[in-house]
Amino acid sequence: MTLEIVSSNKSYGGWHKRYRHRSTSLNCDMVFAVYLPPQAEQGVKLPVLYWLSGLTCTDENFMQKAGAQRLAAELGLIIVAPDTSPRGAEVPGDPDNAWDFGLGAGFYLNATQEPYARHYRMHDYVVHELPALIEANFPVSGKRGISGHSMGGHGALVCALRNPGRYQSLSAFAPISNPMACPWGEKAFSRYLGDDRARWREWDASVLLAEATERLPILVDQGDRDDFLATQLKPEVLQAAAKAAGHSLTLRLQPGYDHSYYFIASFIGDHLKHHAEALKG
Amino acid sequence: MTLEIVSSNKSYGGWHKRYRHRSTSLNCDMVFAVYLPPQAEQGVKLPVLYWLSGLTCTDENFMQKAGAQRLAAELGLIIVAPDTSPRGAEVPGDPDNAWDFGLGAGFYLNATQEPYARHYRMHDYVVHELPALIEANFPVSGKRGISGHSMGGHGALVCALRNPGRYQSLSAFAPISNPMACPWGEKAFSRYLGDDRARWREWDASVLLAEATERLPILVDQGDRDDFLATQLKPEVLQAAAKAAGHSLTLRLQPGYDHSYYFIASFIGDHLKHHAEALKG
Repeated sequence: MTLEIVSSNKSYGGWHKRYRHRSTSLNCDMVFAVYLPPQAEQGVKLPVLYWLSGLTCTDENFMQKAGAQRLAAELGLIIVAPDTSPRGAEVPGDPDNAWDFGLGAGFYLNATQEPYARHYRMHDYVVHELPALIEANFPVSGKRGISGHSMGGHGALVCALRNPGRYQSLSAFAPISNPMACPWGEKAFSRYLGDDRARWREWDASVLLAEATERLPILVDQGDRDDFLATQLKPEVLQAAAKAAGHSLTLRLQPGYDHSYYFIASFIGDHLKHHAEALKG
Repeated sequence: MTLEIVSSNKSYGGWHKRYRHRSTSLNCDMVFAVYLPPQAEQGVKLPVLYWLSGLTCTDENFMQKAGAQRLAAELGLIIVAPDTSPRGAEVPGDPDNAWDFGLGAGFYLNATQEPYARHYRMHDYVVHELPALIEANFPVSGKRGISGHSMGGHGALVCALRNPGRYQSLSAFAPISNPMACPWGEKAFSRYLGDDRARWREWDASVLLAEATERLPILVDQGDRDDFLATQLKPEVLQAAAKAAGHSLTLRLQPGYDHSYYFIASFIGDHLKHHAEALKG
């Protein structure tokens, strides 16, 4: 598998690099970003934090706006940010060109319905194909963490909960916590997965957490002035599932914060430390 | 003068706010951004750092990408980011719609030539009108610092050097150091100021520094892999002027860094500390 370099920027003594490659999971060309801290050039094997972005994002939003590189450089964390959906002229999007389905809105699942099933397999891409590429091409320790925002928070939770043993740390910002029961999730799941709601349960973090056997401590930050909190995000459902099943979930309701990257940037440091603690231990 | 709030995001315990107002200097509506650290709500009078962005930018680039809020919150610095030119349907831009002149490229000077003279008075806006607005509406101490990037680095240097006593601290990232003698500057100065190069000297940081009497210590960071270094930026001319006139200029050539916000974010902390030291002393 060849990686074609797209761009390279020195950042906090390390490097922000973007690569293009042909994805066999998604049947299209994909671009991802990686932040390599200075330690990556010093022969040290480093843990990797996978960051999954939200609706409409690409690999660029987090790397440009979260301000994560400073602490990643200090902690010696590699950060990998994939795109949020398959891309390209051959990939079908939303029939109405909406922003909450299709391109930029892959929902980190494996679609079963036409015309999406051939390309929309972001779960397999994020969990298997991309880590294999990263682990073949960069100085990694083999430890993996995963985090994300909104649709990407849902993605991080679901990727970790569906694949026990694969991630050693987990967190999320304002995740879509119960996608089966919110408008964004209902639209996406019905089209990607079909009308049988029993199938939806396999991709819903709150359902999966209730049944999970692996006990990863989960950190979730949520702004209490987030416009999507009540209708789309519903962290209280995730919290109830954690409580009922005895999982360790730290849900922090942050007063005054909204859904933007200003919110993420304000708390990314705590998340990086949460991951580094588990990944470097 | 009324300020209309455009948006408001909580950020590192403080607030990122954007305002629209009618500018009397520029004869158009303008938007600016302000970062108010948590101390602004605690009855403390705070110093203000003015940040001037580069070509094609608005008030948003720095606030989204520089990662300055974390340390500004810690240091108790207000940061104000104006737009980079007058805006609106009534404002003439580049006749060829180029990105290096006109809209997004006001060069922080007062134009004397038609059709630009009525609107392109960014110097007066940045040095007088905007600080008056800030000082009437926010809890400020009266101390002012100024910094910027590329065209905005030129702007910061020129605003401070033309107005001794008005700023108590000064720095720049990759400034256009000798605009009279580079393609970006020659294009802008000839159109905004006319063909008489004697007039251009009043807006060239290297010329102004050679003649300056005020002795502000200046911090300049410059990436040595910046594509614009040799043709457009020329920090060596500024350095020679500083040396000849006995000014304190710390020019740091940062190995491997380019012209992007990844470069700015990597060193913004040093600049904020440089300003805070002078502004809070």
